[in-house]
Amino acid sequence: MTLENPKSDFGNWFNEVIFKGQIVDYRTPVKGANVLMPNGYDIWERIKYLLDMKLKKDGVRNAYFPMFIPKSFLEKEAEHFQGFVPEVIYATRVGEKELEEQYAIRPTSETIMYYMYALWVKEKANLPIKINQFNNVVRWDTKHTKPLLRDREFLWSETHTCHATYEEADEQVKNSLKVYSALFDELCLPYIIFKRPENDKFPGAVYSLAYDCPMPDGRVLQIGTTHHLGDNFSKVFEIKFQDEKMQFKYAHQTSYGISTRLIGAIVAVHGDDKGLIIPPLLAPIQVVVIPIIFKKGKQKIIEEARAVTKTLEEADIRVHLDDRDQYSAGWKFNEYEIQGVPIRLEIGPKDIEKQQVTTVRRDTGEKIIIKKNNLIEDVKKILDAITDELKRRGKELLESKMTTANSIDEVKEIFEKGKMIIQIDWCGEIECAEKLREETGAKLRGTKYDIEEPATGNCIVCGNEGKVKAYIADAY
Amino acid sequence: MTLENPKSDFGNWFNEVIFKGQIVDYRTPVKGANVLMPNGYDIWERIKYLLDMKLKKDGVRNAYFPMFIPKSFLEKEAEHFQGFVPEVIYATRVGEKELEEQYAIRPTSETIMYYMYALWVKEKANLPIKINQFNNVVRWDTKHTKPLLRDREFLWSETHTCHATYEEADEQVKNSLKVYSALFDELCLPYIIFKRPENDKFPGAVYSLAYDCPMPDGRVLQIGTTHHLGDNFSKVFEIKFQDEKMQFKYAHQTSYGISTRLIGAIVAVHGDDKGLIIPPLLAPIQVVVIPIIFKKGKQKIIEEARAVTKTLEEADIRVHLDDRDQYSAGWKFNEYEIQGVPIRLEIGPKDIEKQQVTTVRRDTGEKIIIKKNNLIEDVKKILDAITDELKRRGKELLESKMTTANSIDEVKEIFEKGKMIIQIDWCGEIECAEKLREETGAKLRGTKYDIEEPATGNCIVCGNEGKVKAYIADAY
Repeated sequence: MTLENPKSDFGNWFNEVIFKGQIVDYRTPVKGANVLMPNGYDIWERIKYLLDMKLKKDGVRNAYFPMFIPKSFLEKEAEHFQGFVPEVIYATRVGEKELEEQYAIRPTSETIMYYMYALWVKEKANLPIKINQFNNVVRWDTKHTKPLLRDREFLWSETHTCHATYEEADEQVKNSLKVYSALFDELCLPYIIFKRPENDKFPGAVYSLAYDCPMPDGRVLQIGTTHHLGDNFSKVFEIKFQDEKMQFKYAHQTSYGISTRLIGAIVAVHGDDKGLIIPPLLAPIQVVVIPIIFKKGKQKIIEEARAVTKTLEEADIRVHLDDRDQYSAGWKFNEYEIQGVPIRLEIGPKDIEKQQVTTVRRDTGEKIIIKKNNLIEDVKKILDAITDELKRRGKELLESKMTTANSIDEVKEIFEKGKMIIQIDWCGEIECAEKLREETGAKLRGTKYDIEEPATGNCIVCGNEGKVKAYIADAY
Repeated sequence: MTLENPKSDFGNWFNEVIFKGQIVDYRTPVKGANVLMPNGYDIWERIKYLLDMKLKKDGVRNAYFPMFIPKSFLEKEAEHFQGFVPEVIYATRVGEKELEEQYAIRPTSETIMYYMYALWVKEKANLPIKINQFNNVVRWDTKHTKPLLRDREFLWSETHTCHATYEEADEQVKNSLKVYSALFDELCLPYIIFKRPENDKFPGAVYSLAYDCPMPDGRVLQIGTTHHLGDNFSKVFEIKFQDEKMQFKYAHQTSYGISTRLIGAIVAVHGDDKGLIIPPLLAPIQVVVIPIIFKKGKQKIIEEARAVTKTLEEADIRVHLDDRDQYSAGWKFNEYEIQGVPIRLEIGPKDIEKQQVTTVRRDTGEKIIIKKNNLIEDVKKILDAITDELKRRGKELLESKMTTANSIDEVKEIFEKGKMIIQIDWCGEIECAEKLREETGAKLRGTKYDIEEPATGNCIVCGNEGKVKAYIADAY
């Protein structure tokens, strides 16, 4: 089995590679709600584990809140929920009967969590609260769906914190960035952290930060977000406490999240014309052992393959021996290439003779002979080298998709040749961002959060004094 | 904070202890859909981990399937779904619009999973399939709800396997029992494995096995089930393959599950009048360190408490130091007793003087002085002793709730004094089970699966020849 679509045809390639690589099966009876296959779920488990360790270290604890939100609740927080309304799905019936109250199925859990937070926060000693949920959410996009990138039901992590002051919440925002930056580095994903413009904030947030990851087609994919919610929600939900002077103060909050979309980002950034390339840290199988069998000496080769597999297993390397008879070695090569297994390890008669194994790197195709007495050490070195190469490629992808423009016409010219992330000078006014959108179809993604970038020229839209460098791009 | 209700008043005690022990907060706006608090979710994470290791060892892999099941699907498998119909909740609306197709929210995932399995099974080489999901399910009980024991939305593990023959599925049933028995032993839970009578099988199963755990009030709680589905579902969903002779065969299936109800079982079986008792393997905090502070020498005690905490931490013991000033030692004692922390470790001036720490076992209240140079070893010994004691108590509870009856009148007499699990002689006819139900209100839970128990007298209902010992009980 090989791929029909080259990566240059990104949309078709993506759908083909997640299917043939057994990440997702989208042949379900519900459009936009797909099966995350064992290979895909395994990656998700590892992402969850990596994230969970970091969140726990920051004092965040996991919990689970109901998926149902009474319809009457939504009216309470109109501003927030307004943004989700067209995509919210409602449960209205049980068996043959209408429900007395209709329930929205969570598109995100602010509403239900903050209702409970209000019950928990009475005095300053109750703060901070830092809770994360790993759960499913539903956003019933009626126009576009795309497996992993825009699913109607997806799995995610949503972290919600509550603090005594605006400043403490600001510190928590920084903690979240440390957690996510470390995670995305582990996933070998390139990104830019944007402060979203006012018209693209999370509904109800003071400010929203977002990680945009470049896609091979020059679009960007939002792979993580952090919101400083100030006391906007706490005023609606009455999350307040008495301070030392016995005065009531509203809590200040943050929320941040990542989702199974990250699997899509990993597929998109790292894969190639032969299929998936899974970073070693995430790969369900890190090394696949394939015996190269001839009629003569078959038993010896199988035995050797088993011994090598056992040695690697005992060194905590995730290794799989494929000694199935009914498939040829060549068929297996293709199969594991599509699935993105980082290292293929072949054992044939010559390898046994020379006390060696033959390895092939999935990322570069490079063949590396390893002496048996160096097996574990050398395999680990190759896994590390693959990780480094994937990180390097990620950075290269980001750089290759970035450019600058000094006028709207130039933006249009660039987009005519292909999607790019374009740096411009901006006056900071939302009107200009909106005009840009109308004229070019691309969204102003924001300004860099972690690096100060003052403008070096006038706003390319209105011509007034530029304030800051901003970035425009088309997004998934 | 102490408990108002003694354990002898089980229903009220249970609700109080899960709330004050911070396992569940049921003050949500949705009846029967509660918050699994960090302490409760932490236990669930450990249960999942223990189960996951065992399932993976048996070749089961995790995946995620959509929560939505098209209504048209349900008609396909009328027999199976009929059992769930009155509790199934439907999503019918998105935003302000009616959905084109209505979706049931999974009460269990057979329907959606087996639709996919049919796409995956083409030849014998595709079998077995062994997939587990950790997900949320919804059963909208309109009459009774009880936190943790009967929730409308709850978290669970559902494992679904597919095999070439009936016998292989039978073997898988046995694998599932090995997994669950080992798990429940780790949770220190007593149980009986029943083969459910024909009228109490899972809809669509050839046979259903279930783990019943005794409750302090003499009722039983079903804490796990395994179903041999034969080819009943595969015929409906067309899960079939070509065998060696190129003939089409239907696959044979099993499904099995456990849920957050297990947390309820742990609370109910192990707790006492002072609150929760969490088995050490599951406890979020295994040892709480409480400095006993007097005005003089405070700093020295705090330092010592920190040093002891660090030592235990480094030995991978889950330890928490509570050195908060605003609460008294006595207040803290109560608090951690209610939360069920297995060991309280006190450090006061006398302890420092004598190079020792004072520990108190949550289960027995026993005070044990430990010499500092034996700290890790002795703490581990006490944790093991607590585990053993909880297992012993579990068995004792089961034995204390079991009795026998030789007539319907005797059953009634027993129930008048209190709920029990009653062993009777049974002819094996469903009519007799139903008559028993009508006359006594109690259900025939089934016959023992793992032990053969032939009847020693006539059926206590019809008086005909007894075939087998059966058990009746009232259930949650």
